[in-house]
Amino acid sequence: MNIILFNNSDLLNPDQIGLDDQRARHIIRVIKAKIGDKLRVGRVGGQLGKARVTEISASSVELEFKLTDAAPPALPVTLLLALPRPKVLKRVLSSAITMGVKKIFICNSWRVEKGYWQTPLLTPEKLREISLAALEQAVDTILPEIILKPRFRPFAEDEVPALAQDHDAWLLHPYSVSVSPTTPATTTSRPTDSALIAIGPEGGFIPFEVEMLRAAGLRPLSFGPRILRVEQIVPCALGQFIRKPVIS
Amino acid sequence: MNIILFNNSDLLNPDQIGLDDQRARHIIRVIKAKIGDKLRVGRVGGQLGKARVTEISASSVELEFKLTDAAPPALPVTLLLALPRPKVLKRVLSSAITMGVKKIFICNSWRVEKGYWQTPLLTPEKLREISLAALEQAVDTILPEIILKPRFRPFAEDEVPALAQDHDAWLLHPYSVSVSPTTPATTTSRPTDSALIAIGPEGGFIPFEVEMLRAAGLRPLSFGPRILRVEQIVPCALGQFIRKPVIS
Repeated sequence: MNIILFNNSDLLNPDQIGLDDQRARHIIRVIKAKIGDKLRVGRVGGQLGKARVTEISASSVELEFKLTDAAPPALPVTLLLALPRPKVLKRVLSSAITMGVKKIFICNSWRVEKGYWQTPLLTPEKLREISLAALEQAVDTILPEIILKPRFRPFAEDEVPALAQDHDAWLLHPYSVSVSPTTPATTTSRPTDSALIAIGPEGGFIPFEVEMLRAAGLRPLSFGPRILRVEQIVPCALGQFIRKPVIS
Repeated sequence: MNIILFNNSDLLNPDQIGLDDQRARHIIRVIKAKIGDKLRVGRVGGQLGKARVTEISASSVELEFKLTDAAPPALPVTLLLALPRPKVLKRVLSSAITMGVKKIFICNSWRVEKGYWQTPLLTPEKLREISLAALEQAVDTILPEIILKPRFRPFAEDEVPALAQDHDAWLLHPYSVSVSPTTPATTTSRPTDSALIAIGPEGGFIPFEVEMLRAAGLRPLSFGPRILRVEQIVPCALGQFIRKPVIS
């Protein structure tokens, strides 16, 4: 937790919040804050700032805050993700949201086990919990939109073409035929602006699905001859869209 | 397991191997191979190829192999990693090795809990097991060198300067002061050739350590205003050194 996020329901006054849940426990037990200490805070969906601890009890905390800074800019990437198994789903969502993705489609695929759609992680409450934890890690306030598409074909046929039209649209494919490991990196081959990135399940989208996504406007993209896990390819691919690195 | 890796100790003949451990179980139960089926194989430290199943029992398998292809080229990155907690260590090593890193220094830092150095994961046997599993994922045969440096200062003073001299040398730092999120990506700001990348513990190297690493020749590098977890920053940073992506 690198920032304490709050909602309107936490407000005691327009510039004061009262917390008595796991955020209070974190402030009391992990940060070990004392009255007068300053903490980084943010309003969910709003600005970042600082808050001063004004009251501490055994299980609750009051803070007086001042919001001064905008949330960091979104990563200009829409993610289209075949539903992975629950443990991987949680990690992948955390990575994507921590890295600044604000729109995530989770879709079906032939290689997705049907039972995965029953995971409690896909309830709005759990998705919000995962999202907030990732924003607390990232120091961000803007929740992502997470959209479930449990039927692949109507999604790929009716919705993906419009999504792909607005962006550079890439299909990351582990067994891509286009692998050419000796080609040097060039700026023209690096996606640079806003993008749609589709990532298949372990084993990849099946050929029929690949063809549908290509017909919808996605171009296959390979990150070399090695086969990466979904939880590795997501930060690797998203990292290509961070608008730097900056060297000091 | 995207490839079956074998050693000289598995050889029955110069072109035949016999397996009776978890590789045999994987072939029998997961792949459900039958006599005559062809599997992707590789010799640890050597070439990749195909093998034909010639014998199957309840718990053992014999394969006749032919090695034809070189292992994929190494990722031209040396990783210098402050020891994370064991669970994260395993994930981070898996990511780095799957992505093709062949030299990894694991060093101490002020924010590393001393107890982490006692984890059984740091024994040569466990490190080899983690490495082989990552190579089996990646379809690679070349084991990485993993070097433990439990004392930060002598390592940073006596060894890092020589390591940094051979490469572009970067210190990835979560609270880097150089954050400038509106700077557009440029090729000159992207590391392009072989590199040394240092990644601190959760919370980052302390200022004294940062100064020592800068004195050793490392330049601070930030991937934007968001604070990423170590297991996210590793694939994100390594992805910058994959010599493509290739678009088909």
